[in-house]
Amino acid sequence: METYLKEQPHKRFNILTGEWVLVSPHRTKRPWQGKQEVTEPKDKISYDSECYLCPTNKRINGVKNDDYKSTYVFSNDFGALMNNSEKFSYKKGLLRAEGEIGICKVVCFSPNHSLSIPDLEISEIEKVIETWQQEYSLLGNLKNINYVQIFENKGAIMGCSNPHPHGQIWAQYSIPTEIQKKTATQKEFYQKNGTSLLKTYLEEELKEQTRIISENKHFVTLIPFWAVWPYEAMIIPKQAMPNIKNLTDNQKNSFAQQLKLLTQKYDALFNTSFPYSAGIHQAPTNKMDYEEWHWHMSFYPPLLRSATVKKFMVGYEMFAMPQRDITAELAAEKLRSL
Amino acid sequence: METYLKEQPHKRFNILTGEWVLVSPHRTKRPWQGKQEVTEPKDKISYDSECYLCPTNKRINGVKNDDYKSTYVFSNDFGALMNNSEKFSYKKGLLRAEGEIGICKVVCFSPNHSLSIPDLEISEIEKVIETWQQEYSLLGNLKNINYVQIFENKGAIMGCSNPHPHGQIWAQYSIPTEIQKKTATQKEFYQKNGTSLLKTYLEEELKEQTRIISENKHFVTLIPFWAVWPYEAMIIPKQAMPNIKNLTDNQKNSFAQQLKLLTQKYDALFNTSFPYSAGIHQAPTNKMDYEEWHWHMSFYPPLLRSATVKKFMVGYEMFAMPQRDITAELAAEKLRSL
Ligand SMILES: O=P(O)(O)O[C@H]1O[C@H](CO)[C@@H](O)[C@H](O)[C@H]1O
Ligand SMILES: O=P(O)(O)O[C@H]1O[C@H](CO)[C@@H](O)[C@H](O)[C@H]1O
Repeated sequence: METYLKEQPHKRFNILTGEWVLVSPHRTKRPWQGKQEVTEPKDKISYDSECYLCPTNKRINGVKNDDYKSTYVFSNDFGALMNNSEKFSYKKGLLRAEGEIGICKVVCFSPNHSLSIPDLEISEIEKVIETWQQEYSLLGNLKNINYVQIFENKGAIMGCSNPHPHGQIWAQYSIPTEIQKKTATQKEFYQKNGTSLLKTYLEEELKEQTRIISENKHFVTLIPFWAVWPYEAMIIPKQAMPNIKNLTDNQKNSFAQQLKLLTQKYDALFNTSFPYSAGIHQAPTNKMDYEEWHWHMSFYPPLLRSATVKKFMVGYEMFAMPQRDITAELAAEKLRSL
Repeated sequence: METYLKEQPHKRFNILTGEWVLVSPHRTKRPWQGKQEVTEPKDKISYDSECYLCPTNKRINGVKNDDYKSTYVFSNDFGALMNNSEKFSYKKGLLRAEGEIGICKVVCFSPNHSLSIPDLEISEIEKVIETWQQEYSLLGNLKNINYVQIFENKGAIMGCSNPHPHGQIWAQYSIPTEIQKKTATQKEFYQKNGTSLLKTYLEEELKEQTRIISENKHFVTLIPFWAVWPYEAMIIPKQAMPNIKNLTDNQKNSFAQQLKLLTQKYDALFNTSFPYSAGIHQAPTNKMDYEEWHWHMSFYPPLLRSATVKKFMVGYEMFAMPQRDITAELAAEKLRSL
């Protein structure tokens, strides 16, 4: 690895979004006198009578949860999208708006109030993956749904309002900004080279090894060259597939293993239940062909130096471009060694 | 204002970035059980011997601050950019990186440790504006500097590590992502219509009035139709100008008045020293023509419901597109009435 990439301020190109990130490797030396986050002790109880996600408890709208034994899915009682909303189109001078139809769902990963992904058995994580597959198919087949975003906000610092392990799925009519960017870059590469962008990228990374966290039969976990968040990581299937629908049992198992390993490493890094937002990017579900799409799962964790000091994406990052301090290679080395 | 824009989920188009924001007006009804921020009591002291920004105090690198009486500018001791770094170019397969040259500066707004923008006299705010003008000119004229980002992170919640009122300026070789987007949209409009995009936008907003917070001789403060953050606002000069360099004394005074008024309204909204990141977007400083550029100042404040409950831009927002709950019109109405 070239020394200047380790020591000199530079920008790196994100091949999936077509955007750059500013990297300032020398900046980790600065002392931190700012905000310290509070670490929440992890719940150790398997059932909390006050939790609106635990089995048999009542939710805010009065509905009672099933006495579920594995994963559990329901429509978000306060969803940002509604499937019966108006599909209007508004144009007045420069102002433009469009009615947006959609569905927001909640996916409980386990009936146990205290078991997050790293604590689950592989077979239980496989169940979570199967639930994601089912929901992607189910929602994607609905009229007016052209994209399905599966994600998890973990930890209070990431806006998660309930520690009971759960993720969300927002499915909608429009194809969101991030997906449009990633579709354009992947399509361009596929049309030129007849192979998927991420397949070629994976080959290069596996040769270089410096950003690899772990690898098994069907998946690779790595810190992308263009990572924005300090310990941002990606789990990428070796085989190019537009979405998660058709994973074989072996692939599902490989994916579950990588999910458990990465999140365990995260928890070990600062000895805390590691907060993050994670999401699966995959092809839109409208009836078009997306052979260029190579689905992947990304993790955006905010912590930078310890369980209580996070990276702030604020002024410069909001007004100009994202900025990071430690290099992707250093982050990968730390996670690999755990 | 059409009822569906007040009640139905929809997306709105940002004419400056070309991107959409999801608006969920019905969603403010959801109860909040998540993270509560700590409000920091505002410092009342004019001098803090522990503060590395107060006059005559020593900074971490040993340098002593001047006994300054108005604004005070120095190079950031731990800047993300350095003006003597390498200008390399790296390309290996799909990986691309470029050395980035730049300068990071700190601008203290006042020698007084406790006076933030809303607390300063108009004449003192004019001094801050003059300092921004000088730095934009000075930095913009340097070799290797093509863009100058002036910004302020206010409040610990926005990553500000010192309560002493100050902003930052990062000047650099590359033209950052946000500026590239805003250059493209403004240029397209200017070439088609021979007038600035924001001038036309301002005329429409002044006719409609619903999103205007305040107006004086030379400036308008409003919540843009496409606002992302709950109380996001813009201060826009009525006269199209690519940058802040050539403001007349009258314009400077008008700008200072709007700055004070908006930040006072912010502080009054939740009865707290209102956190935000603010930034001035203006034309790049390379020698090209930017007649399409109409500079403006934006405020991105995180608070949503109270001094302790903020909006989290997390999972869905990171992986798909920004999302907001209250409408721009409601936010403007609240701020206008204060
Ligand atoms: O330089 P500061 O104020 O310590 O740092 C703050 O502002 C910078 C520019 O927006 C960010 O990169 C940092 O994450 C933030 O903590
Ligand atoms: O729906 P939740 O978990 O209450 O809300 C959380 O995730 C959403 C989707 O990323 C965000 O819009 C909210 O700001 C955040 O608090």
